[in-house]
Amino acid sequence: MNGTLHINEGRYRVNWNALAAIGATPDGGVHRPALSEAHLEARRWFLETAQGAGLETTVDSAGNHSARLRCGPPGAPVLLLGSHLDSVPYGGRFDGALGVTAALEVLQTVADQGITLDTHLEAIDFTDEEGHYANFLGSLALTGKLASAHLQAPRGDHARFLDALGRAGLSEASLFTTGRDPATLAGYLELHVEQGSRLDEGQVEIGIVSGIVGIRSYHVRFVGRADHAGTMPMERRLDAAHGASAFTLAVRETVMGELPGSVATVGNMAFEPGVFNVVPEVVTVSLEFRADTEVRLDEIEALLREAAAHAARRFGLDLEIQHLDSTTPAQMHKQVQAAFAGACEALGLRHTTLPSGAGHDAQCLAAVCPTGMIFVPSAGGFSHSAREFTRWQDCVNGANVLLQAALALGRV
Amino acid sequence: MNGTLHINEGRYRVNWNALAAIGATPDGGVHRPALSEAHLEARRWFLETAQGAGLETTVDSAGNHSARLRCGPPGAPVLLLGSHLDSVPYGGRFDGALGVTAALEVLQTVADQGITLDTHLEAIDFTDEEGHYANFLGSLALTGKLASAHLQAPRGDHARFLDALGRAGLSEASLFTTGRDPATLAGYLELHVEQGSRLDEGQVEIGIVSGIVGIRSYHVRFVGRADHAGTMPMERRLDAAHGASAFTLAVRETVMGELPGSVATVGNMAFEPGVFNVVPEVVTVSLEFRADTEVRLDEIEALLREAAAHAARRFGLDLEIQHLDSTTPAQMHKQVQAAFAGACEALGLRHTTLPSGAGHDAQCLAAVCPTGMIFVPSAGGFSHSAREFTRWQDCVNGANVLLQAALALGRV
Repeated sequence: MNGTLHINEGRYRVNWNALAAIGATPDGGVHRPALSEAHLEARRWFLETAQGAGLETTVDSAGNHSARLRCGPPGAPVLLLGSHLDSVPYGGRFDGALGVTAALEVLQTVADQGITLDTHLEAIDFTDEEGHYANFLGSLALTGKLASAHLQAPRGDHARFLDALGRAGLSEASLFTTGRDPATLAGYLELHVEQGSRLDEGQVEIGIVSGIVGIRSYHVRFVGRADHAGTMPMERRLDAAHGASAFTLAVRETVMGELPGSVATVGNMAFEPGVFNVVPEVVTVSLEFRADTEVRLDEIEALLREAAAHAARRFGLDLEIQHLDSTTPAQMHKQVQAAFAGACEALGLRHTTLPSGAGHDAQCLAAVCPTGMIFVPSAGGFSHSAREFTRWQDCVNGANVLLQAALALGRV
Repeated sequence: MNGTLHINEGRYRVNWNALAAIGATPDGGVHRPALSEAHLEARRWFLETAQGAGLETTVDSAGNHSARLRCGPPGAPVLLLGSHLDSVPYGGRFDGALGVTAALEVLQTVADQGITLDTHLEAIDFTDEEGHYANFLGSLALTGKLASAHLQAPRGDHARFLDALGRAGLSEASLFTTGRDPATLAGYLELHVEQGSRLDEGQVEIGIVSGIVGIRSYHVRFVGRADHAGTMPMERRLDAAHGASAFTLAVRETVMGELPGSVATVGNMAFEPGVFNVVPEVVTVSLEFRADTEVRLDEIEALLREAAAHAARRFGLDLEIQHLDSTTPAQMHKQVQAAFAGACEALGLRHTTLPSGAGHDAQCLAAVCPTGMIFVPSAGGFSHSAREFTRWQDCVNGANVLLQAALALGRV
């Protein structure tokens, strides 16, 4: 401990428990989809807790919630520390929430000590990281990268999205006035749970993220012909389910066989008409894949387009591929990675460097300021589920690394 | 034509066109799901048209709509001619509607001629043949074969079913008081479109049905584990979509390879949670298969259960198979088949004998009285779709065969 500042573990735990109770589900998870009542309650808790600690609070025009500590000289840039308070539907307590709680604790610890830096510090909770309506809504807005096309087909639907914005005191237009001048941003640091099992299995305490994968998503539609399920002989059918099934198996074989380390997922199929006694005319497959470089994303796309075409030909089907969304792989800043490594050394924590298979707000921030992320272990690797779990000591370790890196990077 | 009575083709066509306009869709089909507003309108049209022709009308406690011609002696049994006015969602104009229109025309023709028979004649429109809520609801009720288990899980849901019954002036209890004494039934004749392409391709004008397949339906649930689609490596997933896809392809290969002439269909898959960025935890496959004997149905069931178990094992999934419904294969009555053949001979129409791959109300009636069916050609074999089409001359041929068979069977 000698000389290395630590966060206040008791206060951190009280805050953590209070937050985990908001939107809690009986199985130990939370249900806080973006802009839901539980999510808005979590955000009120954040403001009240920050104000109670004597921090300034602000809410910007994209709904991002911030607590600020003016520990730098007048006009100094701000070092952002943050994550998100929204969850996937019936998700876990740790994803996002841990990073916001830790950021708040870092500001309180620095304030307690009366430390001054070359930057101010800001703990930030970004809006709709999980994409209940639109992925990374808050961080895209803050970095000025939000494009109107991103909002044209929000998940759920557009009317529900506008309604949810309204309930949160926001509007579609206000989202486009959030952008900050990059010169005001000293950097962005994010603590998050790994959501995979590499750290847990390797018994490594801290993962320093080298980069964040890019994601591409598509609707792959196989179109055959609706026929009576009793009277059309099997050999004369144009059954969209056969193309969709063959494609789903081909996605698995292609990625496992030819693209080790990348992932591709068929998360849904929608059948039309979708009844027992009619041969399926249309099956729309929801496909996404992820890789750490654009070159690799292009390679996967080419292979899976060929696999889809092959599956369609095999069963006499038509094929329509609709591109829905892309995110760009993002590299984490070398100097920030070095600051995290130095913090781990000072704290005596085992650490490794690894890419992130999940998307994070950090990938948006990386486009405008020095950005880095650390992971703490997810027990068993469970994620986006109530089974998600991170041991408390790992939560503490992550907050201490965040604190040390902020102190290092705040002294330019 | 000499000596062989024909229906009134002009009147038949006027009625046909009037009926096809009810619930008409822009693509030439109809949307008349059972107990929908359009279906109830078609039933009102049926009653008004029959009354306008001087026929008695009745509606029984299962909603079956009837027109009666008292052309037999007092106390004579009744020869039923009929089909159904409901359609699958966005289905064709001919399926069911043709048989009801032809039955009405047969009664009108017999009435025009003042013919007396040994039986009365009744044109009947059965409730919910297509199983929008429960397959063969009206014909099961009329034959006294309706079991309460058949109504425990109506499609849609139970509240909607009760609501629809209420709007039609029916109740769940009333469905169980519909049964007729078999001694009052001289037989049941049904004209229907083939819904397949055997007659059309063979240039045969009339198909005399030998028997109707039995159908078994199931929910086959593959249960894996929900994981983050970015962070869980492909080789460690328990992805329910892989089991469901492998099973769907195995169903096709098993039935085509080992069970020629039978059919099996995966009509839907429901994914949970069903989103892009979560590995599917559960996929529920809607499966049905059909065959002309119980022995063959048992054989298919055994093979497909083994195929499902194999697909689940291959991907480390759990498997739950829920039996939903079964119908028994039904043989058509030899004497009725002979009467149809004699009618075709008298009218100079090419005919053949064939099994029905689709279920029909006739399979319920076969349990209580001499029952037979004829098919007329479906151009291209299209069915349960707006592309369903039968040439007008074939509609006329079918009604004339129905008329001749009714005259023959009505003279015991």
